[in-house]
Parts: sequence; structure tokens; C-alpha cells
Amino acid sequence: MIGFGFIGRHLAQALYVKRDVLKKVDKGFKLVGVGEIDGCAYNEKGLNLEELASIKKLSGCKDFSKGKTSVELIEDSGADIMIETTPTNIKDGQPGLTHIEKALEEGMHVVTSNKGPMVVAFKKLTDLAKKKACELRYEATVAGALPVFSLVRDCLRGDKILKISGILNGTSNYILSRMYFEGMSFELALREAQERGFTEADPSYDIEGIDPACKVVILANALMDRNVKFEDVERIGIRRVTPEAVNLAKRAGYAIKLIGTVDETLEVAPKLILENHPLCVHGTLNALHLEADLAGEITVIGYGAGKETVSAIMNDIISIVKTSA
Amino acid sequence: MIGFGFIGRHLAQALYVKRDVLKKVDKGFKLVGVGEIDGCAYNEKGLNLEELASIKKLSGCKDFSKGKTSVELIEDSGADIMIETTPTNIKDGQPGLTHIEKALEEGMHVVTSNKGPMVVAFKKLTDLAKKKACELRYEATVAGALPVFSLVRDCLRGDKILKISGILNGTSNYILSRMYFEGMSFELALREAQERGFTEADPSYDIEGIDPACKVVILANALMDRNVKFEDVERIGIRRVTPEAVNLAKRAGYAIKLIGTVDETLEVAPKLILENHPLCVHGTLNALHLEADLAGEITVIGYGAGKETVSAIMNDIISIVKTSA
Repeated sequence: MIGFGFIGRHLAQALYVKRDVLKKVDKGFKLVGVGEIDGCAYNEKGLNLEELASIKKLSGCKDFSKGKTSVELIEDSGADIMIETTPTNIKDGQPGLTHIEKALEEGMHVVTSNKGPMVVAFKKLTDLAKKKACELRYEATVAGALPVFSLVRDCLRGDKILKISGILNGTSNYILSRMYFEGMSFELALREAQERGFTEADPSYDIEGIDPACKVVILANALMDRNVKFEDVERIGIRRVTPEAVNLAKRAGYAIKLIGTVDETLEVAPKLILENHPLCVHGTLNALHLEADLAGEITVIGYGAGKETVSAIMNDIISIVKTSA
Repeated sequence: MIGFGFIGRHLAQALYVKRDVLKKVDKGFKLVGVGEIDGCAYNEKGLNLEELASIKKLSGCKDFSKGKTSVELIEDSGADIMIETTPTNIKDGQPGLTHIEKALEEGMHVVTSNKGPMVVAFKKLTDLAKKKACELRYEATVAGALPVFSLVRDCLRGDKILKISGILNGTSNYILSRMYFEGMSFELALREAQERGFTEADPSYDIEGIDPACKVVILANALMDRNVKFEDVERIGIRRVTPEAVNLAKRAGYAIKLIGTVDETLEVAPKLILENHPLCVHGTLNALHLEADLAGEITVIGYGAGKETVSAIMNDIISIVKTSA
């Protein structure tokens, strides 16, 4: 596992809590190494998951070696699966992109929660995985705990996906929900979201629609067989949504929501959604609406961020272990 | 395939339309036989799917033999998979129960859209399938096109399901929605549902909560490892829901919905659901709300009946063909 931030730590806790579930799938399952910026923890017999689940910094781990890089860890680990949980960088995908390429080159399966590499190099990475006969799973990159890619792959096997739309960013949905329910201004709702710790240091990632645009790119490439890039997404954020517009919409039975769409065109923009439409969820919830040729319309709703995201990572890990055990 | 009613005919159409998808999974895929009350169509080289997709009665099929029973077809077919789509009978599960037992005894995998056998004999059938090392899939028995069992099995592999609640009957949801939006009486909304063909000849199946109670039984047994029967479900229908109660709830921000719940107890009853809760969907939509230990809360919404149900059957078929090919 590379990355021991919020997601990495919660995943370590889940691996500890769910150790019996994992042992049932593969009784030799172990976590041999964890990489961070300042060094790596490695133990070929398996790190102590109970210890890992309790520490806040990787350097607190007894098997920690200062200075060893994550790339060295990947090369030396002999692992079957590399789990990439470093922070998203959508400029060049680094350092996650290098970690994933390195792992695939070494013949490892990859599970990632890091959107960056999948946004900047989707085709390159999926091609490389195919060439190396490795699995590359990225359920956690879009809409956190919500099953999206596994839903289409394993639950809608006969269906063709015709259109996708969704609320793909919890922070902007929180802001729009506060404006909708409390009549707040955008600025006030944003400040509240910042105070409650829902935004990045630079909030433009959320409110300018950059984050949901990344997800639109991954959805289009993964579920509708496109080959698109971030620049292909038409993007309008929520900064100019006024309380007056929200109120007018509300009186007509609509809410204004930041919707990501994969159709003929790719788009992220504020849209009017009927209050009674399944997509119209509030607070920090995410929602994904699929139009499929057999199933018709299917909507999935859940937590798009936070510790619940480890559910998606665990599903990817277990499904790989199960098929390769 | 046994049963050539609404679901059977739409499945035949889907098998025809999706023949390339199926051939990709197994290039020898063919439908060798279809059974109905008055006889069977059988061809060991595969029935003509284009013909089957266009006829309304099985007797119109060129390979039809009058009088041959479905049980004889199952015994003689040499098929790898039996698909059971006969009508639900929750008294004794027949004739579907016999078809499923017979097929499993013959070592066939089974896919069923028929709730009856799964309600009256869940444990017996799943035990028999395990003993025979056969798959028994029943995605279509609960909430039509909505992924439920495959969702938990293949998308939430690390999660434990803690609680389930859902709108599991489209007809009663249609009636309650008309009462909610139009202020109609129960009787008028029921008559409208009957005129639009949404109800059974005997509407008590839907409005007394019998149908959703069957689904609660299957959900509890399949997803929470219980061993419960229809009689274990506390059940209150919607007949006594008044327009006044609906209106009072609405003014307080709630809708009255017929909710099936699997928790400490099993229950089907009208409940107040917050208008902004993901479960609060209207019209004939179904919704399923899962509480899981890792993923938190996940809601799935879609069509609980109608031709969209073939999506669930196709997924079951393809997943079996894929693992056994």
C-alpha cells in the first residue's frame, strides 16, 4: 500500500477489522508494506495490522525505514497487489501515476483510490494492465463508497449504458443544499462548508466543478468506452448560483444541483432537478443515475467521500484476491 | 427456460437482441427448450431466437410439441442452466418449486424470477444447490431490475449488511404517490391503478403488503443469513391510509410509504419517510436502502417490475455462464 493519509489509515483499520473476511478468501493474505513520503514500513511476513490500525504516522510503525522510497518498496516488495492511496494530482497524476505504472510493469494487480492517474492516463494504464494481464481497479475514484464500476461490470452484465448523470461532489452539494433549505448566500454556505472541514484548502477544486469533471472523464472512459480527457468536459461551477435563482427554482418544485453528465457531450454544470427525481439528494450525499438499455433507469445514492470510501477499496481488493487465489 | 408469459417472452427477446453479448461470453450459448402449460418447444441445436422473440404463444413455435411437460423437458434437455419464469405462488411455490428442485437434482444451475419457491423453501433450495455444486440465482425475485443480491455479493464484498429497508412494491407506491400528489382517496387511487393495469386481478397481494412481505423474507434469508418464513413478517397494508393522514404528513415534510424492513424484526407497514430521504421515491419506482458497516448507507432506485426485470435475469445468466464456461 502506498499512501498513509486519511484513506490509507482507514484502509489499514478495515484490513485489521476484516481480517477474518480476507483470510476466508485467501488464508495467506497479508499486507507486506506501506509507503509514505518520508519512508516505508516493510515486513515480508506481513506488517502488524493491529499496530498499523492504531498509529497516525507511518513512522510510528516498528517496521518503518526512513528514506526508503515508495518506488523502491514496490520493486522490492514481491507483492501481488499494489494499493495506491496518495493524494490526487490532476496536473500530471504524480506521484500516483509512477506508482501504478511501476506496479503494473512488475506484474502486480493495482487498486487505486487516486483519481489523478486515471484522469491523465486512463487509456495508457488500462492498456498496460491488459498487456500485463493484471487487474486495474479504481472503484474508489468516483463517488467514494458508491458502487459504480463494479455495479455496471458485475450487476448489469447484459446492459449497455446509454447515459450517465450524477451529483459527483459532496462539497458543492452541501453548499447548494444549504442555499436550498436555509436561503443562504453562496459565500456564507461556502464559509460554513470550510469551517466544517468539507473543502480543500483551495475550494475551487470543488466549487468550480474540477473534481466532478475528473469523475466525468473516468466514467466516460470506463463505462462508455470513450477516450476523453479533462479538457473535453464543458465545465461551469456553482460560484454564480444566487439565492434568488435557488428560491425561484424551489418555488417551481426544482432544486439547483451541480450535475456531471456523460452523453453525446461531457458536461459539469448547475442544473434544475425535479425535487422528486431520484437524483435530487441533499447534504454531502452523492448520486449516480444510469440509463441502460435493459434495466431502464437505475440510481445509486451514498457517501461520496470520507472513511466509507474504504468499502470500495475493500471490494476491489477482495474481488482480485478471489479471482487470482 | 420454463414459462413463456410476460417475463419469458421479454427474456426471449433480450436473448435475441443480446445474442452477440452472450456469444462473447460463451460462443456455444444456445436456448434449447422452452416449457409452458400446454407443451414444450425443444431443439437440441438451439431454438430459433428470432422466431421466439416474435411470437406471443409458445405453441406458435415450429419446434413446439403439445403435451410434453416442463418436468420432462428439464429431464430431457441436457441443459446447463434452467431459467424459471412461471407465475409466483406463495402458498406452496408450485409449479416453480418442482422445476427448480428437478433442475438442481439434474445438476443444472438455476436462474429464477419466481418468488414463490424462494419464499416457501429458501433454505431447502440453497442447501440443495450447494450440495449439487450448482448456482442458484434469483436477482429478479426482489425489486425487478434493481441489483440487490448481486450488489451485495459483488460490489460490497467487504461489507456486512446491518439493516435493510425498502419500497418493494410498485403498485402500492403508485397508489400512495397519487394520494400524496393529488390528494386522492385510497379507493380512487386503487381504481386508477387497476385501470392502468398495475394490479393483479386480486389487488390484496399488493395493497395488503403480501408481495413486499415475500421480498422481505428473501432479503433476510439471502443478505442477512436468517432462516425466516412468510409468517415471521409483521404486516400492515395500505388500505386504511387516509387522505387526511397523507396530507398531515406532507405538511410536516413527510410522505407515507409502504416500507419493508429487515432488522431485529421483519416488518411491512406504512411509515413516515422524510421527503428528502433517498428512499422517498414516487410513482411505480422501487427503492432499497442498505445500512452496511463499511459503506454506511447505500440506496438503489429503479423499476421493480415490468420488462426491465430481464436485466436482472440476464445478469444472473451471464454471470453463471462466465464462471462455468
